[in-house]
Amino acid sequence: MTETLGSTGEFGLIEAVTKGLSTSEDVLVGPGDDAAVVAAPDGRMVITTDLLVEGRHFRQDWSSAYDVGRKAAAQNLADIAAMGARPTSLVIGFGAPADLPVAWVQELYQGLVDECELVGAAIVGGDTVQSEKIVVSVTAFGTLDGRAPVLRSGARPGDEVAVVGRLGWAEAGYTVLTRGFRSPRTVVEAHRRPQPPYDEGPRAARAGASSMCDVSDGLLSDLGHIAVASQVVIDIHPNALAVPEPLQAVAAATGLDAMQFVLTGGEDHALVGTFEPADVPEGWTVIGSVAEGNEDRPAGTVTVDGAPYAANSGHAHFRS
Amino acid sequence: MTETLGSTGEFGLIEAVTKGLSTSEDVLVGPGDDAAVVAAPDGRMVITTDLLVEGRHFRQDWSSAYDVGRKAAAQNLADIAAMGARPTSLVIGFGAPADLPVAWVQELYQGLVDECELVGAAIVGGDTVQSEKIVVSVTAFGTLDGRAPVLRSGARPGDEVAVVGRLGWAEAGYTVLTRGFRSPRTVVEAHRRPQPPYDEGPRAARAGASSMCDVSDGLLSDLGHIAVASQVVIDIHPNALAVPEPLQAVAAATGLDAMQFVLTGGEDHALVGTFEPADVPEGWTVIGSVAEGNEDRPAGTVTVDGAPYAANSGHAHFRS
Repeated sequence: MTETLGSTGEFGLIEAVTKGLSTSEDVLVGPGDDAAVVAAPDGRMVITTDLLVEGRHFRQDWSSAYDVGRKAAAQNLADIAAMGARPTSLVIGFGAPADLPVAWVQELYQGLVDECELVGAAIVGGDTVQSEKIVVSVTAFGTLDGRAPVLRSGARPGDEVAVVGRLGWAEAGYTVLTRGFRSPRTVVEAHRRPQPPYDEGPRAARAGASSMCDVSDGLLSDLGHIAVASQVVIDIHPNALAVPEPLQAVAAATGLDAMQFVLTGGEDHALVGTFEPADVPEGWTVIGSVAEGNEDRPAGTVTVDGAPYAANSGHAHFRS
Repeated sequence: MTETLGSTGEFGLIEAVTKGLSTSEDVLVGPGDDAAVVAAPDGRMVITTDLLVEGRHFRQDWSSAYDVGRKAAAQNLADIAAMGARPTSLVIGFGAPADLPVAWVQELYQGLVDECELVGAAIVGGDTVQSEKIVVSVTAFGTLDGRAPVLRSGARPGDEVAVVGRLGWAEAGYTVLTRGFRSPRTVVEAHRRPQPPYDEGPRAARAGASSMCDVSDGLLSDLGHIAVASQVVIDIHPNALAVPEPLQAVAAATGLDAMQFVLTGGEDHALVGTFEPADVPEGWTVIGSVAEGNEDRPAGTVTVDGAPYAANSGHAHFRS
């Protein structure tokens, strides 16, 4: 008989998922009390939260429980990195129906743990409840190690725009999955498990990044957040961006524009930032520049080679 | 036309709920960036998280959106207080169907904000997504102001057990609601909006509490957590506990035992702790004592007047 959440009960489930958790020197009180206590060495804590809902953020037939765990952790850890911070820990809220196998939840936690291990973070607490659909809430924490946070509002005219990490891969993977295909495997894998360049966040901060965010909604959309918050105009030059072969293959097979994956696809959690020209870190690709707004292009605008981008420029929840 | 999440969109919703948020000196970077930054003055952060799901933790016909907000904040802030900490901030994950009126979400946030104001805490960030059922994820943070956290594992033989706050009120309210009644109003209100004694948490810590937790599952069940974590036996004397008149009224009307509400009802978020006899703070009621385990009563046991309690002793998720 398969053990389910209903047969093992809440406390059995908590024991099953917490026994394998690693810890770190940042964890002062781990799971099992009313609350956890985590070190905030420089007297500040960087905090972000995301909610993932079955059917909307993942499908059990497209992603394994392990993949859901990897992705749930990754999108939060990337937000921490995008502040220029180093992730230290996270807490998990988990809801599921009583007939879900315990093994599914253990695989989910293994995915969360493995993604955390990439950055040395630990799971320090959580909550488990019964719900009709699977719900995973992740709240992640990080430390700035004494540095100022890199905000969206710091871009200055004359800065260059640079990016590191994949763009459009997850969107290409989503596109083939929605059409019933499972290949190219590299883009399907990218949809299931993003590979955010975590270490580049603190590295960009040390290099003097004036603004930064992670690409979760799409490059143009997320640069729009920086342009609005900084009250500047951002112009990018897509020719600086190579379009990887798997994206070209998906575009050819689906009749879509490969560059649209790159410019508007979210969920790869690349990092995009602005820097004084001399400060751009090695390995980052300069893709554009920051200017003052004017009558033709008011502050808050993002353009592509000087003109508005024509296609749908990103993802928004609730609207269909 | 009623504005809904679908018609206003994600960014409209975020604007609607964040514009009314107050802030505090602990909030270094508030909502609107990749992550928030919150002060952790003594280099440590106390962290707890809870997930509330419509139909399981609240019903729209029993609780207003405002009440759901109050309760969601309260149960997390109480966990922070139960560590002996002072709540400073929280983040919210929110999922709902596209046809939910924006006004519902604004009332929810007003409830969250009003409960936070009781302790001077601020909402510093969140995430909004679409989901079939309403889901509210709350992660709360607090500071120990230099003190050691009060854990569940610190109870020592010879300590007295003391409690502060309501017991059984929320359970009595839930009982009348499940039977289709709306009175006594005081217990129905207690179910909708718990009144945790937040300030008593840090106060107990300063007084030297050896262990503490909040009563969320039921007094006997939560004392069981302390008994197991501390490897001691706890014996309580219910005669020390007055049974309030509204609970007696519900018991009389339903044929239930009023003392069972007191001993096993959760969700009022009273605080229960253990103290050396001289340390019990004024206003707390001594209800029992801590002893070593022996052959008859092994460590981890909770007894009532020296004997096991006969009725169902608390709430567990997933099991039915």
